[in-house]
Amino acid sequence: MTEVQVPRVSTGVAGLDEMLGGGIPKGSILLLCGGPGVGKTILSLQYMVAAVRRGEPCVYVSLEEAMEKKIMNAAAFGWNVKEAIDDRKVEIMDIFMIPHSQGIVEPVDRNKGKLQLSLEMEIERSIKKIGAKHLIIDPLTSILVHEQRSGRKRFIIGQLFDTVRNMNCSAVITAEGIPKESDFYMEQFLADGVVLLNKDLLDYKLIKTLRIDKMRGIDFDDQPRRYVITGRGMQVFHSEPVLM
Amino acid sequence: MTEVQVPRVSTGVAGLDEMLGGGIPKGSILLLCGGPGVGKTILSLQYMVAAVRRGEPCVYVSLEEAMEKKIMNAAAFGWNVKEAIDDRKVEIMDIFMIPHSQGIVEPVDRNKGKLQLSLEMEIERSIKKIGAKHLIIDPLTSILVHEQRSGRKRFIIGQLFDTVRNMNCSAVITAEGIPKESDFYMEQFLADGVVLLNKDLLDYKLIKTLRIDKMRGIDFDDQPRRYVITGRGMQVFHSEPVLM
Amino acid sequence: MTEVQVPRVSTGVAGLDEMLGGGIPKGSILLLCGGPGVGKTILSLQYMVAAVRRGEPCVYVSLEEAMEKKIMNAAAFGWNVKEAIDDRKVEIMDIFMIPHSQGIVEPVDRNKGKLQLSLEMEIERSIKKIGAKHLIIDPLTSILVHEQRSGRKRFIIGQLFDTVRNMNCSAVITAEGIPKESDFYMEQFLADGVVLLNKDLLDYKLIKTLRIDKMRGIDFDDQPRRYVITGRGMQVFHSEPVLM
Amino acid sequence: MTEVQVPRVSTGVAGLDEMLGGGIPKGSILLLCGGPGVGKTILSLQYMVAAVRRGEPCVYVSLEEAMEKKIMNAAAFGWNVKEAIDDRKVEIMDIFMIPHSQGIVEPVDRNKGKLQLSLEMEIERSIKKIGAKHLIIDPLTSILVHEQRSGRKRFIIGQLFDTVRNMNCSAVITAEGIPKESDFYMEQFLADGVVLLNKDLLDYKLIKTLRIDKMRGIDFDDQPRRYVITGRGMQVFHSEPVLM
Amino acid sequence: MTEVQVPRVSTGVAGLDEMLGGGIPKGSILLLCGGPGVGKTILSLQYMVAAVRRGEPCVYVSLEEAMEKKIMNAAAFGWNVKEAIDDRKVEIMDIFMIPHSQGIVEPVDRNKGKLQLSLEMEIERSIKKIGAKHLIIDPLTSILVHEQRSGRKRFIIGQLFDTVRNMNCSAVITAEGIPKESDFYMEQFLADGVVLLNKDLLDYKLIKTLRIDKMRGIDFDDQPRRYVITGRGMQVFHSEPVLM
Amino acid sequence: MTEVQVPRVSTGVAGLDEMLGGGIPKGSILLLCGGPGVGKTILSLQYMVAAVRRGEPCVYVSLEEAMEKKIMNAAAFGWNVKEAIDDRKVEIMDIFMIPHSQGIVEPVDRNKGKLQLSLEMEIERSIKKIGAKHLIIDPLTSILVHEQRSGRKRFIIGQLFDTVRNMNCSAVITAEGIPKESDFYMEQFLADGVVLLNKDLLDYKLIKTLRIDKMRGIDFDDQPRRYVITGRGMQVFHSEPVLM
Repeated sequence: MTEVQVPRVSTGVAGLDEMLGGGIPKGSILLLCGGPGVGKTILSLQYMVAAVRRGEPCVYVSLEEAMEKKIMNAAAFGWNVKEAIDDRKVEIMDIFMIPHSQGIVEPVDRNKGKLQLSLEMEIERSIKKIGAKHLIIDPLTSILVHEQRSGRKRFIIGQLFDTVRNMNCSAVITAEGIPKESDFYMEQFLADGVVLLNKDLLDYKLIKTLRIDKMRGIDFDDQPRRYVITGRGMQVFHSEPVLM
Repeated sequence: MTEVQVPRVSTGVAGLDEMLGGGIPKGSILLLCGGPGVGKTILSLQYMVAAVRRGEPCVYVSLEEAMEKKIMNAAAFGWNVKEAIDDRKVEIMDIFMIPHSQGIVEPVDRNKGKLQLSLEMEIERSIKKIGAKHLIIDPLTSILVHEQRSGRKRFIIGQLFDTVRNMNCSAVITAEGIPKESDFYMEQFLADGVVLLNKDLLDYKLIKTLRIDKMRGIDFDDQPRRYVITGRGMQVFHSEPVLM
Repeated sequence: MTEVQVPRVSTGVAGLDEMLGGGIPKGSILLLCGGPGVGKTILSLQYMVAAVRRGEPCVYVSLEEAMEKKIMNAAAFGWNVKEAIDDRKVEIMDIFMIPHSQGIVEPVDRNKGKLQLSLEMEIERSIKKIGAKHLIIDPLTSILVHEQRSGRKRFIIGQLFDTVRNMNCSAVITAEGIPKESDFYMEQFLADGVVLLNKDLLDYKLIKTLRIDKMRGIDFDDQPRRYVITGRGMQVFHSEPVLM
Repeated sequence: MTEVQVPRVSTGVAGLDEMLGGGIPKGSILLLCGGPGVGKTILSLQYMVAAVRRGEPCVYVSLEEAMEKKIMNAAAFGWNVKEAIDDRKVEIMDIFMIPHSQGIVEPVDRNKGKLQLSLEMEIERSIKKIGAKHLIIDPLTSILVHEQRSGRKRFIIGQLFDTVRNMNCSAVITAEGIPKESDFYMEQFLADGVVLLNKDLLDYKLIKTLRIDKMRGIDFDDQPRRYVITGRGMQVFHSEPVLM
Repeated sequence: MTEVQVPRVSTGVAGLDEMLGGGIPKGSILLLCGGPGVGKTILSLQYMVAAVRRGEPCVYVSLEEAMEKKIMNAAAFGWNVKEAIDDRKVEIMDIFMIPHSQGIVEPVDRNKGKLQLSLEMEIERSIKKIGAKHLIIDPLTSILVHEQRSGRKRFIIGQLFDTVRNMNCSAVITAEGIPKESDFYMEQFLADGVVLLNKDLLDYKLIKTLRIDKMRGIDFDDQPRRYVITGRGMQVFHSEPVLM
Repeated sequence: MTEVQVPRVSTGVAGLDEMLGGGIPKGSILLLCGGPGVGKTILSLQYMVAAVRRGEPCVYVSLEEAMEKKIMNAAAFGWNVKEAIDDRKVEIMDIFMIPHSQGIVEPVDRNKGKLQLSLEMEIERSIKKIGAKHLIIDPLTSILVHEQRSGRKRFIIGQLFDTVRNMNCSAVITAEGIPKESDFYMEQFLADGVVLLNKDLLDYKLIKTLRIDKMRGIDFDDQPRRYVITGRGMQVFHSEPVLM
């Protein structure tokens, strides 16, 4: 492919950037799928921190777990999120969803209370406010879990992704769970890129692997690769086969 | 079989044409099934580009992902879709589906707004407009996802396929997902041909295979074959067994 | 068993007749189950063509795929269905099902419009019209797909099968799908005979097998056998084990 | 166990009687479970014929498949059911179930029309009429398929089994399907005995086995055993292991 | 564990008592899970007979299968239940459940008709009547099968188990079915102890094993062990591995 | 990771503390998942007892099984819970849930009757009452089982976890069941840490393993490890591979 023209955005993880041939294409929506404890939130923070270090503002939409807790955990990796907020390089949306009767759900900001506009519009406002180049949502699952109808779910994702694209942002969005052999998540089809984080037991030994399942518009290493979480964040062993 | 009489249409992929003995029978509906990132959209574009190069006009119905993004991705393969549009060789329908209450769904054109007629009738109009010989729908899933009742779903597919056949078009239609061992998609039975694009992990190594599951009216190579996506599109290794 | 007395009807496939000890018992209902592209329609046509060659009239109830298309595909095998229709040896019912609200479904003839009577009664009328000795339905699935309630589904099949038996016809009826290990289709229990057409992948190699799962009133070869579709229709390798 | 006191009833299959140590305990309800084409109906007829030969009258409740067809198939084994009917040794109930709206189902006799009483009471009447010592129902599934609620289904089976027990009959009842590894049918728990008839594919070879899953009040051979259907009915190889 | 203080109750099966280090803790509720024909009822009777021989009165709540039949089957093992009833050492509740509309279920005594009080209260009354030290319910499944809602089901079990505990009884309760790999029954969590009775096919050979899955408050042998049903009841091979 | 700053809380199990590098981070919510009889309640008590020995007050919310029973079982391990209650080091909430119509559920205290406030608020009150530093809930499942809607379930867990975090407690919460290969429990994503307790059968031998699936903010041993329950509670073999 004539990939020369495609400008790239680093994921913040050197090994993963290698697998992508330099990073994700600018303006892409990357979905991170994985079970509990695989490091989805860590990777989402690592992506943000790398962007901030390049001077690019980010909007981080935190769902379920309070952002305060994530900021504290980020500190253990030497990532100073608070400073970035103070420098107006990071805008936090600390959201939880309140379900009302008849399937109506209300997103509420932990600090500011009820949102004035719809979640997409508030995200748009936050992006404009600091001129963000990146959007992180962690996890998308919280927004979708209230909706049973698959057609409706697809529409919500579509709306959200359109917002990201209209604002010319790149995005990293986490999704709880790992799709089974031939079952897929709707989000996987709608996102531009998908990274799967996996834990397997092989003879009672745990193996952690990352695989790029999809990345539109570029060539990439599609093989599974081992990874670890260390004191400096996620690290991917991109040049070795998983089993040797 | 006395295949001499059956006129063929190239899929745009030389190796796949070989497997089909020259291409799909003219007037056939070919379904491409696969999970995320297997190259369904790429193959659908490659089919279109080949047709345009032969001077045959195409209608491309794009769902979910905005056509603009696909056109950009096509450019990375050296495929100039914009030019084809300007030459009136390609007519784009850039659709998304808005779900209303009570299961009613409204298809909307990203550029032109609400459709005046039903989706089938608008497709028919587009085909007539440029005298199209080919229809591409990517993906069919978006049209079906709103309908839960299997009888109704079957009827929608039937209607759509009848339109294609009445207009004497050949068609390539993508479907999200890969059917499991003995579960099948309804579309597989109703289409004339089915190509399955698959990704497997074998000892933590990824293997991508393509298999023609079905093609009415002709002889074909029914064995699975490896394929890759390169800078020139999809390429199929049609003369080698998958495992050597 | 004293099989001498049971008169037989050829399936049109020599190898399958061998497996059955001469054909299916006259007046039997044979169900053909299989996934997409296994050759169900081809076998149903081959059965009909053989009957016509013996001078026995057939009613062919075609659902979903237009009969015109099947006739064209049959021609590739050298089977002249049109001539048989002109000779009044074959009566075609070219049906599609329109679902209305509240689960009501209306069968419509592609050429003649709404049926005047119920589908069973129209089938009965067609059988009488040409004095048919055989009924083919391809596929039964289209008739059943609109009905969710298993009791009701069972009743519909029962009604249809009773019609066939009352008219002293033999029948070949196709069903979409292949039952899983210990899940069965209701139709399998209600039919007199069941043939399963199967495709398996073994180390990325495709293997096509046919197995007689059931045939009331006679002895038969119950082992799976390989088959191919060639320019002369389906051919079964009835005297060799699948794996050698 | 001090099995001396338990009077036995032959199943009509010598090998199966051996496995049971002489037959089923008098007054037991034996359930025959199996997929299509395993020989459930043949075994049910073989049981009846053996009883008639001992001079013991039987009521045979035939569902789905018309009794006429079964009688014809029985003749191929040299079993003269018609004569037994004429001798008032066999009373046939040739039933089909008509589903009405709201889950109400009406059992209808193919010859006599609507039943005057409930199915249990009509069965009771038939048993009294000829002083039957045995009841055969083939298949039970037809009676249960209309009922979705598991509590209700359990109640229907309980009612039916109570009738059998109150009339001091022994019973053979067939059930369509074969329970999966750790899924069971409700009927299996409620019956006194359960025989499973199974077909497996092992390296594309078919293996037919019978296993007594349960038999209250007696010792029995609980190992799976091979069986065949020959011109003389079912035959069980009770003294050899399945794989040698 | 300092098990010295925990008074024990024999299960009536020597090998199982060995596995438990002397029996179940007094006042425990032991759940017996297993498919059809594994010997749940036999073990429940064996437990009762052992208690009666020690002079401890028992209430036996029999569901589905009439108690009369169980008493007869017990006799084959040399267990005289009738005598125990006459000696007022055993109080029988011979119950079946009648489902009414809207999910309401009425427990009815086969001999005494409608229960005056709720099932728990009648059980309480029976326990008081003979000063029972043990309660046996066979099977619990019959009580739960009518309830679809998992929260409600949990509540019913809780009520019943509370009754047992308030009356200072030990209990053996059977449950139909065997939980699958990582699916569990609610009852397993709520009971104090769980014994799983299992049948497996290994190369067409049947293997019967018993495993103590759980027993609160004591140490026990948690390995699976082979068992047989002989003329003297259940016998467990507690000191040998299953596969040798 | 610079784990120096993260203050730790002992789990009460030395081997598990080793795996965690000293214990769980202060203020974390640890979820214990496992099937019946794996030792969830034992571990929850062991955690509490260790805290009490350090002089840190605990609130123990006991659901389903009466606390009295757990206290008795704790005594067998030499853990004196009663004394801790008298010393106001432990506050017990002995709850059961009563389901009313329309999905409304009422938590009731076994001793004090209906709760005056919502369960979260009562928990908050109990924590304040004794200045608790730890909350134990055993099991969470009882609170969630009445709620079918996944969005609503997520909200309930979120509310509860927020309460714990606002009160600056550390928490150990048990969950019934063990998630399957790629199915996860919602609680696993929302908790800070997850420990899975597992029982496997390998050639009819039982193997018990513990695995830390997730622990936010710290490095930990993520390999499965064998464990046993002895007279002194749970013990983990943290330095040996499971299979040797």
